[in-house]
Amino acid sequence: MESSGQKKLLLVNGPNLNLLGTRERHIYESTTLPQITSALSDQAQVDSIELKDFQSNHEVVIIERIHLALEAKLSGIIINPGAFTHTSVAIRDALVGVQIPFIEIHSSNVHAREPFRHHSYLSDRAEAVICGLGTNSYVAALD
Amino acid sequence: MESSGQKKLLLVNGPNLNLLGTRERHIYESTTLPQITSALSDQAQVDSIELKDFQSNHEVVIIERIHLALEAKLSGIIINPGAFTHTSVAIRDALVGVQIPFIEIHSSNVHAREPFRHHSYLSDRAEAVICGLGTNSYVAALD
Amino acid sequence: MESSGQKKLLLVNGPNLNLLGTRERHIYESTTLPQITSALSDQAQVDSIELKDFQSNHEVVIIERIHLALEAKLSGIIINPGAFTHTSVAIRDALVGVQIPFIEIHSSNVHAREPFRHHSYLSDRAEAVICGLGTNSYVAALD
Amino acid sequence: MESSGQKKLLLVNGPNLNLLGTRERHIYESTTLPQITSALSDQAQVDSIELKDFQSNHEVVIIERIHLALEAKLSGIIINPGAFTHTSVAIRDALVGVQIPFIEIHSSNVHAREPFRHHSYLSDRAEAVICGLGTNSYVAALD
Amino acid sequence: MESSGQKKLLLVNGPNLNLLGTRERHIYESTTLPQITSALSDQAQVDSIELKDFQSNHEVVIIERIHLALEAKLSGIIINPGAFTHTSVAIRDALVGVQIPFIEIHSSNVHAREPFRHHSYLSDRAEAVICGLGTNSYVAALD
Amino acid sequence: MESSGQKKLLLVNGPNLNLLGTRERHIYESTTLPQITSALSDQAQVDSIELKDFQSNHEVVIIERIHLALEAKLSGIIINPGAFTHTSVAIRDALVGVQIPFIEIHSSNVHAREPFRHHSYLSDRAEAVICGLGTNSYVAALD
Amino acid sequence: MESSGQKKLLLVNGPNLNLLGTRERHIYESTTLPQITSALSDQAQVDSIELKDFQSNHEVVIIERIHLALEAKLSGIIINPGAFTHTSVAIRDALVGVQIPFIEIHSSNVHAREPFRHHSYLSDRAEAVICGLGTNSYVAALD
Amino acid sequence: MESSGQKKLLLVNGPNLNLLGTRERHIYESTTLPQITSALSDQAQVDSIELKDFQSNHEVVIIERIHLALEAKLSGIIINPGAFTHTSVAIRDALVGVQIPFIEIHSSNVHAREPFRHHSYLSDRAEAVICGLGTNSYVAALD
Amino acid sequence: MESSGQKKLLLVNGPNLNLLGTRERHIYESTTLPQITSALSDQAQVDSIELKDFQSNHEVVIIERIHLALEAKLSGIIINPGAFTHTSVAIRDALVGVQIPFIEIHSSNVHAREPFRHHSYLSDRAEAVICGLGTNSYVAALD
Amino acid sequence: MESSGQKKLLLVNGPNLNLLGTRERHIYESTTLPQITSALSDQAQVDSIELKDFQSNHEVVIIERIHLALEAKLSGIIINPGAFTHTSVAIRDALVGVQIPFIEIHSSNVHAREPFRHHSYLSDRAEAVICGLGTNSYVAALD
Amino acid sequence: MESSGQKKLLLVNGPNLNLLGTRERHIYESTTLPQITSALSDQAQVDSIELKDFQSNHEVVIIERIHLALEAKLSGIIINPGAFTHTSVAIRDALVGVQIPFIEIHSSNVHAREPFRHHSYLSDRAEAVICGLGTNSYVAALD
Amino acid sequence: MESSGQKKLLLVNGPNLNLLGTRERHIYESTTLPQITSALSDQAQVDSIELKDFQSNHEVVIIERIHLALEAKLSGIIINPGAFTHTSVAIRDALVGVQIPFIEIHSSNVHAREPFRHHSYLSDRAEAVICGLGTNSYVAALD
Repeated sequence: MESSGQKKLLLVNGPNLNLLGTRERHIYESTTLPQITSALSDQAQVDSIELKDFQSNHEVVIIERIHLALEAKLSGIIINPGAFTHTSVAIRDALVGVQIPFIEIHSSNVHAREPFRHHSYLSDRAEAVICGLGTNSYVAALD
Repeated sequence: MESSGQKKLLLVNGPNLNLLGTRERHIYESTTLPQITSALSDQAQVDSIELKDFQSNHEVVIIERIHLALEAKLSGIIINPGAFTHTSVAIRDALVGVQIPFIEIHSSNVHAREPFRHHSYLSDRAEAVICGLGTNSYVAALD
Repeated sequence: MESSGQKKLLLVNGPNLNLLGTRERHIYESTTLPQITSALSDQAQVDSIELKDFQSNHEVVIIERIHLALEAKLSGIIINPGAFTHTSVAIRDALVGVQIPFIEIHSSNVHAREPFRHHSYLSDRAEAVICGLGTNSYVAALD
Repeated sequence: MESSGQKKLLLVNGPNLNLLGTRERHIYESTTLPQITSALSDQAQVDSIELKDFQSNHEVVIIERIHLALEAKLSGIIINPGAFTHTSVAIRDALVGVQIPFIEIHSSNVHAREPFRHHSYLSDRAEAVICGLGTNSYVAALD
Repeated sequence: MESSGQKKLLLVNGPNLNLLGTRERHIYESTTLPQITSALSDQAQVDSIELKDFQSNHEVVIIERIHLALEAKLSGIIINPGAFTHTSVAIRDALVGVQIPFIEIHSSNVHAREPFRHHSYLSDRAEAVICGLGTNSYVAALD
Repeated sequence: MESSGQKKLLLVNGPNLNLLGTRERHIYESTTLPQITSALSDQAQVDSIELKDFQSNHEVVIIERIHLALEAKLSGIIINPGAFTHTSVAIRDALVGVQIPFIEIHSSNVHAREPFRHHSYLSDRAEAVICGLGTNSYVAALD
Repeated sequence: MESSGQKKLLLVNGPNLNLLGTRERHIYESTTLPQITSALSDQAQVDSIELKDFQSNHEVVIIERIHLALEAKLSGIIINPGAFTHTSVAIRDALVGVQIPFIEIHSSNVHAREPFRHHSYLSDRAEAVICGLGTNSYVAALD
Repeated sequence: MESSGQKKLLLVNGPNLNLLGTRERHIYESTTLPQITSALSDQAQVDSIELKDFQSNHEVVIIERIHLALEAKLSGIIINPGAFTHTSVAIRDALVGVQIPFIEIHSSNVHAREPFRHHSYLSDRAEAVICGLGTNSYVAALD
Repeated sequence: MESSGQKKLLLVNGPNLNLLGTRERHIYESTTLPQITSALSDQAQVDSIELKDFQSNHEVVIIERIHLALEAKLSGIIINPGAFTHTSVAIRDALVGVQIPFIEIHSSNVHAREPFRHHSYLSDRAEAVICGLGTNSYVAALD
Repeated sequence: MESSGQKKLLLVNGPNLNLLGTRERHIYESTTLPQITSALSDQAQVDSIELKDFQSNHEVVIIERIHLALEAKLSGIIINPGAFTHTSVAIRDALVGVQIPFIEIHSSNVHAREPFRHHSYLSDRAEAVICGLGTNSYVAALD
Repeated sequence: MESSGQKKLLLVNGPNLNLLGTRERHIYESTTLPQITSALSDQAQVDSIELKDFQSNHEVVIIERIHLALEAKLSGIIINPGAFTHTSVAIRDALVGVQIPFIEIHSSNVHAREPFRHHSYLSDRAEAVICGLGTNSYVAALD
Repeated sequence: MESSGQKKLLLVNGPNLNLLGTRERHIYESTTLPQITSALSDQAQVDSIELKDFQSNHEVVIIERIHLALEAKLSGIIINPGAFTHTSVAIRDALVGVQIPFIEIHSSNVHAREPFRHHSYLSDRAEAVICGLGTNSYVAALD
């Protein structure tokens, strides 16, 4: 992610992340998604980064949003794919197809949860993988 | 599912179940889905249960319908997830996220079909699992 | 299980189920086995079904009881095989050998317990499989 | 696929195939999808075949398009399921449910790519499987 | 099995074999077990062999019968362990414990049936294994 | 096993252990089972422990003996399950069901024998597991 | 193998079986192959069976000999495939292709040898499988 | 396969394919191999391709025929390896060694047959893989 | 890691990380370890954190340094375990034993390297896991 | 361990066992290692055994201590290998190399902990294996 | 290989090794097989060893050549089995059958190639295994 | 290993190899390590090679000795990693990190020993692998 000039980044949040701050509080923190993205935008502005954010429960909407990134000449994508981490080859293909570097983040530590969450279709093609930092996962990826 | 007062239940039918009664008759029975849900609604009324039913071939529509269940203060969900049983971590996350007890049903006996149908992403979080009772699976879950 | 005339059914309960209502209450409910079967008999009578019930911790006694079912011209068998679910090929062979349709039930949700409980030697030959409904598993099977 | 009279065929292209000719050229060829389908339509006309083509990144749209095939009395379906090959039991169920013979094609040789691409939920129910012929995969399937 | 003098042999038949000739005729032949053992005894007498036969659905009865073989100074055991083939380490231990050579037989070809029938706890300690010869399996073992 | 007052313990020996001291002497020692239990009783008396011993080749007899332990208010069970170690979920369920702490012992070192002896259905619920101490395994468990 | 009239049988011996009686005597007996087949021919003649025998170390020669069996209208084939048991899909295809029933025999007990000898490409299509009877395996198959 | 000038192709048919049109007609079609290759040669001539065909049940003959291809300056090889698909590393090595692009074809759909037919030693090195088109598999490969 | 007051952190670098900036530059960046830790200390000072750093190729030295952390009342540990990630249960036990929260970091993306690097003995007990951010992995963990 | 004369024994404690009595008290007891070894020495003296004890977090120190045992003519070794149980082939080789019989002990029941703790590199070469007796594991091994 | 007197050795080269020096030069060196064997013969003569060499693409020819070794009273066999390493149980049986010690060699490092090349049917019965020394593999084996 | 000028080589011997010639003589030969290295040095001198040898039971000492090789401009490393073959990713990383070609040797044939000795963390990165030649393994590697 060493492009010069003003960077444009896309932040993608996958399915059920709209529930953040409301569900299963022993696993997730209580900050809601709008709070996270708003704080993140502020910080991005400080660093002269244009940050678009976007949440969808919908695999195809995520895929097509990634396709659009091709035309928008994004420098990078930060994606919290939620449950699609473990099931979506199509999102992998979309990310690899547009050839934009991406960072995969998870707010909880997936290694400490169910075994089927230990496999990701994205990790081997990601620039980096961050998990378990809670809402700080987003900040770390932005940095 | 031991809530008091009038219960509100949601019945969810997953992909291809709109074909019920038309396809592969050696596996499924010939009753159509509208016939099943209509009979079920009648029985629910007798038991003073408010039963909403809903079918979709669409993963995201099912997920977002489950999210709405949170606000609707449902007592429980009866779900025949069809093919999504074996592939959708996102529906699992939605059901676990809203913290409403649910029963998983299958009209055919999945244990007697292809090996990949023996694994369910929902069963270990379900209250109960019923399969092979044909259209009676729905009645049993309602009871 | 679409035989006409008065149906004769056999209810088989496997090993340790005589402890029902006394052991591991976080998993099982507190109703005892005699209470369950008595309630079940009442309901059967309403439906003009002759229901014989029978519990044994003994694999061979269960096998030979199933053999007798052949002569008794039973319409169906409801079996909660307990631990034999996971270890007894001989009970499978007996059930398949007498060619009487059977329903497999478990009062707890076996999918939420130890991995070795996820495999059943009976399920692929059963008409239906019901688990996790607690004592209602019996009622659902009778219906 | 030996039906007589004028044949009606459906060509289905799955997710990310709208990027064909733009992405990962060391794997895929540089012909775009519209070029492929246009050439294919021409050839179909020569053979008196009515060929409808259709691309979607959307699992449910593909499923419901297959459901429609039932009413349209199609003779066959040619499907390049893209990433859904490896993840969609629902498309399998739709294809098997409408009972129309189908051919599965892949423009790249999936056997020479990542291990998770070696498994297909469709192949055992397909009439034929063709992979690695590039855009000729489509022609071969039409023949 | 190269002992001299008049040989004493034990023929053991395991669970459900009392149903032979009555169940699943597409797999098994229609000769009943008494017919088989009677014919076998006749042939044994011709060869000056004393043949005891014995059937039980009961694992422990089989085990203790094998223990008795120790005192009876048997030359060998012919055993059709039925379903216990796949589940009984205790019968294996009994056979190995008494150190009498044994032949394992199956009337059907277990290799052509369900995968769990491909494993035997006895085969690696048997003198020989015969399967699929139907009732001739018994004769071949006697020879 | 830290109950106060005079302890009552049950010693259970599983199938084929009545052969101890007679079979496969390169694996087992030559002391017989009655010699072991008699010595053990003496030592128990010294420690003011009431020790009941019991051997059976019979799964169901062991299960029902464990059920009785519930009423007898035993402080603990010492069990050498023999071959049932590897095959009996029902004995596991009985031990777990009566909620009496138990120690699992084996006189030979099962880790140095056939691979199928490396798995035990009891070990993860046992207080302790002792193997390979020969007849001293019993003494160690008593201590 | 219930054809009427005079039966014609083919006995096939696979690779290295020409060494029988010379190699690894702790596993195999000391009778040589010519001694076995000669004794077998004699017995066949008594039973009015025409027995052709044939040994080859050569996969293709065995395959083409099986093809010839088609024209020779053989009633059955007895095959000791030796090492090809575990590696030759082509011999399986040949045997299945000519649709002549066959019996698979092994003079040693393959279940007591290396793990890779536990799998056979032929067993699930054989009429019967006999192993460990030494040279009597041949006699048993003939019977 | 983008060589210029007149192309020379080799068509290789593996073991048992000489039986085509005679065996297992529910899997294979009834056209014989000579009929297929004759029709194929005609079509090749139209396209100015020199097509040599060759069948052998013999692994080594196939290997050495592939070695000769090196000197014959072939443009490509079409191979239906039959049973050798699943067992011959040597044919793989020969094809990779001569560095001539090849297409792997199967007349039946191997994905719908026994599990051991799902693995091919050739597919990951092939240009393309075609299966299930029956005799059209050959035509598609030629195109 | 939400302790109040001035935090004391320990940074642990495992085997071969002293080579950072010298080896395999296509995987790792060219910054050396002293450069990384010096920059990190500066930033820590800004945040009023006392940061101790420490590198060792030696499993036991790392273990005993972690033991000391217990007395030093550290708030947290940042560990790049290098190759010990995949092999050291003892470091896991040390980290879990001192009950100090820790973050696991890797400068390269281990998911894109050899399969044996996909398993970590630490991840399921870590607060967070960061990989692939290069030297920024350290900064992200500090934040 | 049946040597005559005064026995000399070595007690080896592996990594992190110096933390005994301080860490994870729900798994381990609160007695410290010095308390255990001191009590053990006293008992050894009673039995005229010379007991040397030794703890190290260091694999190589343990290995070389075992090498020294060769010269010290020890009668046996009691080893609690801690985490090295699951990872150290070198300690296995050292123990096997010096050919001194050893007993493997664990104070917790490893069968009830993480799956990777179920495998031991030592067990199949140990005289005996004792686990879950807490500090009594040491006493039992001494006996 | 410690026989006295003049040694007679056989050098066997398996399939495709006649291509040595012509194919895949990034894996293999450019020396041809005749060059290798000629140099090897010279060195053998110096050491008073009679060395016969032999190459075949043909499994059966290799097998029968090994059988002849029995009569030729060879002291040892050096074999580069090529692709047969991974597929031929028959060559294993031949080598074990003649009971002549053999060394297995590979000119490339098979551990660095495809996973199916990591398994050898010969290695566990070989005296030694040498791979990756290129043509020096032959010299090392001769030494 | 084709560097010109006088070569400098390092010979590394891993854990327990200091016991060579004293332990388990049925597996290893009776030559001691000093005898081997002394003979090897002599031969190296003849070939104008400077050979340093070095043995350690200590993983970290081996790792750091390999690091030093970087500065010493060694041409190659010969390593007998002993038990670390199967457990040390850190030694692999050290060898790969210094980018000096290395040969892996084992004096016994690891393929004929326990299954866990069949996997090596070094082999796929080694120039060559030699095992089973006893002390000649060292000579072969030097050549």
